[in-house]
This record gives sequence, C-alpha cells and structure tokens, in this order.
Amino acid sequence: MIRPYKKSLLTPGPTPVPEEVLLSQAESTIHHRTDEFRSILKEVSEDLKTIFQTKNQVLIVSSSGTGVMEAAVANLMQDGVRFIPVVGGKFGERWAEITKAYGAEYDVLDLEWGVTLNLDDLREKLKVGDSRKVILTTLCETSTGVNYDIRSMASLAKEFNALIVVDAISGLGADELRMDDWGLDIVVSGSQKGLMLPPGLAFISLSKDAQSLIESSSSPKYYFDLIKAGKSASKFDTPWTPAVNMIVALRTALKMILDEGIENVWKRHANLAAMTREAVASLGLKVFAQRPSSTLTSVLIPESLDSEEMVKFIRAEFGISIAGGQAELKGKIIRVAHLGYINLFDVLSGIAAIEFGLHHFGYKFKLGAGILKLEEEFLKSCKDEA
Amino acid sequence: MIRPYKKSLLTPGPTPVPEEVLLSQAESTIHHRTDEFRSILKEVSEDLKTIFQTKNQVLIVSSSGTGVMEAAVANLMQDGVRFIPVVGGKFGERWAEITKAYGAEYDVLDLEWGVTLNLDDLREKLKVGDSRKVILTTLCETSTGVNYDIRSMASLAKEFNALIVVDAISGLGADELRMDDWGLDIVVSGSQKGLMLPPGLAFISLSKDAQSLIESSSSPKYYFDLIKAGKSASKFDTPWTPAVNMIVALRTALKMILDEGIENVWKRHANLAAMTREAVASLGLKVFAQRPSSTLTSVLIPESLDSEEMVKFIRAEFGISIAGGQAELKGKIIRVAHLGYINLFDVLSGIAAIEFGLHHFGYKFKLGAGILKLEEEFLKSCKDEA
Repeated sequence: MIRPYKKSLLTPGPTPVPEEVLLSQAESTIHHRTDEFRSILKEVSEDLKTIFQTKNQVLIVSSSGTGVMEAAVANLMQDGVRFIPVVGGKFGERWAEITKAYGAEYDVLDLEWGVTLNLDDLREKLKVGDSRKVILTTLCETSTGVNYDIRSMASLAKEFNALIVVDAISGLGADELRMDDWGLDIVVSGSQKGLMLPPGLAFISLSKDAQSLIESSSSPKYYFDLIKAGKSASKFDTPWTPAVNMIVALRTALKMILDEGIENVWKRHANLAAMTREAVASLGLKVFAQRPSSTLTSVLIPESLDSEEMVKFIRAEFGISIAGGQAELKGKIIRVAHLGYINLFDVLSGIAAIEFGLHHFGYKFKLGAGILKLEEEFLKSCKDEA
Repeated sequence: MIRPYKKSLLTPGPTPVPEEVLLSQAESTIHHRTDEFRSILKEVSEDLKTIFQTKNQVLIVSSSGTGVMEAAVANLMQDGVRFIPVVGGKFGERWAEITKAYGAEYDVLDLEWGVTLNLDDLREKLKVGDSRKVILTTLCETSTGVNYDIRSMASLAKEFNALIVVDAISGLGADELRMDDWGLDIVVSGSQKGLMLPPGLAFISLSKDAQSLIESSSSPKYYFDLIKAGKSASKFDTPWTPAVNMIVALRTALKMILDEGIENVWKRHANLAAMTREAVASLGLKVFAQRPSSTLTSVLIPESLDSEEMVKFIRAEFGISIAGGQAELKGKIIRVAHLGYINLFDVLSGIAAIEFGLHHFGYKFKLGAGILKLEEEFLKSCKDEA
C-alpha cells in the first residue's frame, strides 16, 4: 500500500467534489420556507436550464437518479402509451425494470452491450401498433461507456409523434446535450457525476409535449408527482422538504461550471476522453464502447486477467478507485472516468496505477507507454488550441 | 490553464495537509486552561518526543520556525559563549542574522551553497579561543536541498565540549534525526513541513547541557523565555495562549505519523527522494545538492532557462506549486518537495508538469523520460521490499 494513502475517485459517479462545493455544503442549514432559500432555488433553477440547454423548468428532487427515472415512467404511464426501453447495458435495463414494475405496456429494443443503436431497429419498434410511443434511452450508458446518438433518435421520434426520455445521469455536463434544440421530451440527471456534487439530488425537465401527456396519467404516485413538483417550482418552492445543504452546494458547483461555459465543459471532457482512449490503446488495450462517451472510458481487459481483481488491487494499493464491469461485463472491463472535477493529472495517476496493475497481474506491455501518450496528446491539444 | 484547476503543493513548506488534520483543526475551539486541553498537550508532548527521538521535553511555541531559532540563540546567549553559524544557504544565513541581531559573539563557517560540510573546517572553528562554542546548523538546508551530516558534527562538537543546535524545520519527519543518540543539544522545528500541518506552530527541545547553559543567560527575552516555557510544559501547560486548534490538529497528524512508525516514515521519504532524483536525472538535469536531503530535490535548470519563469508557468498552467531558487540561486534551480503528505502520484504529477514546463521553454529532452523512470523505480522498490 502506497503511503501516504489518499483516496481518489476515478469512478463514473460518485466523482470528486471540489473543496468550494464541500465547504458550501458544510454551511449552517437554513430553513427552506424562507425568502433566502427561495432565492437560492431560483438561481439554481435558472442555471440548471443552461446546463440542460432548455427553456423548460428543471425540477430538483431529493433522490438518486433512479428516483427521477421512475418519476418519468410513473408520470407518463397511461392507457394507450407504449414504452420502448433501449437496453444496451445496465442502465437501459433499469428503464425496462421500471416499466415492468409499473405494469406498463413496453417493448424492449435490445442492443448488444457496447454497441450503438441502429436507427432502423428503432424505426421498426416505432411503427408497431397505434399506441403513443415513449422511447426510454440513455445519453451515456455508464455500464458500457457508449454514448447513444440522442439527437438522431429524437428526430426519428418526431416522425412518429413519439416522445423521447433521456437518462443523462452520468452524461450531463460531459457529453453534449441540447434538450430544446434536439427536441427531447424528458431529461433526467443526478448530482454525483458531471455536476461535481455528492449523491443525493436528482433533476428532471419536461418538454411541453411531456407536460401535456403527464396530465392525463392516472398511475399511482405521490413523492414523484411531477405536476405537484412543477407547481411548487414555479413559485421557487418544493412540495417536500428539499436537501437544503445540497442545494446550497449545487449553487456553488453550477457557478463553477457556468463560469467555464457549458460548451467549453463539453469540449474539455471530449478532449480528455480522447487522450484517455489514446493512452489505453498505447497499452495494447481495446476501448470497449463503439461510440465512446466523454464521461468515461471502458477498457477490455485481456482474457487472462480478471478486471475485478485489477480494480481491487488498484484501490487497495494506490487509493485510486476505478470501476469494474457490471452484470455480463463483470471481470471483463475496467472503466475510468474523466468526468466533472477530474483533470489531466488525475487521469495520469489513474493510467499509472493501471500500468502498475497490469504489471502486477503479468500482462506484457511497454511500461510507461500510457502515461507518455497522455503527455504527448496533451501537448498536441495545446498546439491545436494555439 | 488546465481545467478543472486544482491547487497542489509540492513546495518544501507549506506542504499539503491531510483532510483528517484539517477537520480536526476545524473543530470548535476549546479553552486552554482546562483538563481537556492539558490532556491533549500531554499526549502531543509525548508523541513529539518520539518524533524528535528524545527523552527531553519538546516545547510547543505559537510561532513560525524562525521564532524558535531565535529562542535558541536568545536563551543561550551570554558572555563566554561563541556561536558558529554554519552558512551554506538561506537558512544557515538566518542563524548568522539572529546571532548578529542579538549582538552575540559569532564566527561564521561559510560553505559553498549546495556542498556539504568538511568536518576539518568545523574543527578549526571549534579550536579558536576559550569561549564555549555553540554550533548553529541545519538538518536539511531547504534553500539548497543539502542534508548535513549532523551525527558527525555532533560527535565532533562533543570533543570540544561544544553544543550543537539543529534547525530541523524542513527536515523533521523526513530525514533521519536522533536527538538523544546523536547527542544534539537543541533541535527546533515547525509545523508546516513533515508534520503535515498548516504553518503556525514551532517546536524546540533542549538537552540537559543546553538546559543548564540557558540558566546562566541574561539576554533579554520574554515570549521566547524557554525556562518559563519549560516550567509550564512540565505541568502540561503553556505560558501564553497557545494556538489551540492547531494543537488539536497536531494530535491527529502525530497519530498518523506514529501509526506508520517514525523509522518507516524516514524510509519512505528516502525512497521517494531517490526515485525523484532518478527521474530528474533521466531528463538530463542535475541534482544540485551534494548530499541530498529526503525532504526535497533541488534541480539545476539549464542556463538558457529561468527557473523563476518555470515555477510561475507550472503554477499558472497546472496549479502545481514547486519552489524556485532563493538568493544567489534565484533563477537557477527548481525545488520539488516529496515531504509529509506528498506521495508517489503527487510527484508523478509534479514531474509531468516539469516536463511540460521544460518543453514549453524549449529545452530538448525525451518527453516522458521522467515519469517513466518514476514508474520503473517504483516497481524496483516494490521488488526490493518483497
């Protein structure tokens, strides 16, 4: 074990939280039914619109991301609506599980994990029957590292008067996302990813079409009742007690992001992601995702190695947390995040730790190739900028 | 400027402070004339003895390290005492300045900066005249990165019934130091180096010989009166209001060090220092210090470059603080600390930042050579341990 042992997160959530944000969260709790808190809610609601690239309300919910995924289904569900969960990983599966839990009508679009979507397959699903279709999909499928082409899916959806609901939990603030321009109907996200907060807050925004559809839903719901939440939000209030300190911290985090500018943030993530993929390739390893997201890089580990063991070794020896594979990818991939408050030097440490891990488990490669490539790509990107 | 921009200290003081220590310091201030505080003082005083490797009291003073350097001189000074400041850098100079400020009798032993001491030169100084000699020297001369051979100097001092006073401000907790075994008379240190605290506390310990000598001193002093401080300390008290929160934080930091074991801490520092020197050499650069300390590595920068510019560039672009040269070394060297809470990955980032700096200023070298060497040396050291 390396000394001094420090814990560092290179996982695709939770991600590291800046000191300024932690200190905001540590300020004395204030009461939520006050003008002071309402003015904070007003400020963060406006800033969230910029992050979501929408003119719609962005509702803040005290839950994990899964809570607002459920909220989307629970509020849309009604007779004559058929959900199309796009399932190419664990978080696509979650959409399918929620529709099933609610007894909704649904028709899974099954994808090979790691592979992006064929639009024709989606078109086939949209054609079936007369019910109103609601596509449930993912900006970044965290389990595989795939970024789906949401923009094209949304434009296909419009052809069929279908709605598209996007889980942007890990993708928001990393992968490009333009809710209004792309015509997305519901976008959900969570706090512990690109927004650089601890877990505990979730966000959901509805288009006018989604808003009018949820008004005719009679599915049981209470905590996640979005009509109630929307009414409160229009008065800069919340229906239930909000996670006050987290919302105060959110204000600080959003200010940091908007100081940089959301398009710059996307560009920075794309840049660091590209460098990371080059570094991985220079170790002789293959990136798993066909259309890789800027939030994380998923890496196929040679068959002789167990990625779970790698992840454990790296955490125990170096204090650096990377993620392993989930479900059918368990043991087969590692996942390195370059998300939120993670910068080039954090990734440099992560790649060095992976090199030490590969060396420890007897994989043959050129020591230092990954970190050298990162330096080279960084200098190249500086040149491109100049 | 890299984003997200994070500040990281690779300077030989202040050094990074562990979160546990910062959180201890953030606890509610308690009153100092209480049993609760006295029991904390008792605990840290015992732990400091282990760090100093002494059975003597270790006094805690609210000041910077310079304060306890002054305390040593102010309390020893008297007719018939002649100080020998060993001056091979900025902190040796400070000893000379203090003796001068006090109007003491002194005889500087001037060394070339970066070079270690020739014991014969010291012997010559000890031979002169009849007055009692007090050597004022430095464990790690922070301005040059030299570690002086304190053990041999102390044994030479004994031959002449001379006293030896050691500035271990940056060296304590990094370079080996054994106050009692080596026969050191006064050792002083500060909080913001190997002890992993913010600046604000200083420490001083006196041998029996030093204790009896200060009793006959009549030089003016009040805040730094060590007889008064010693009497208070024997009742686990302080003569003046102590920096309460820092002493609470000190308890946490000392526990971390002693959990690892002081000899392990020295070994770890020596190991990381050796790796850093190898990394520097692989960039074609020369280590400046002849007998390098484990606290920091001083590196000669090629004449075509200005080290001040390098330091500014690295801080501005990457948020990483390394030190430049002081006084006659200004512009000529950079100094990289591997001290206290700094670990392998911090040094890896530092060396990468230095590579980017060298590249930026047009120095020709093999990109990645430094960080690769660090990886190689780390794996070698793991093998040696196994």
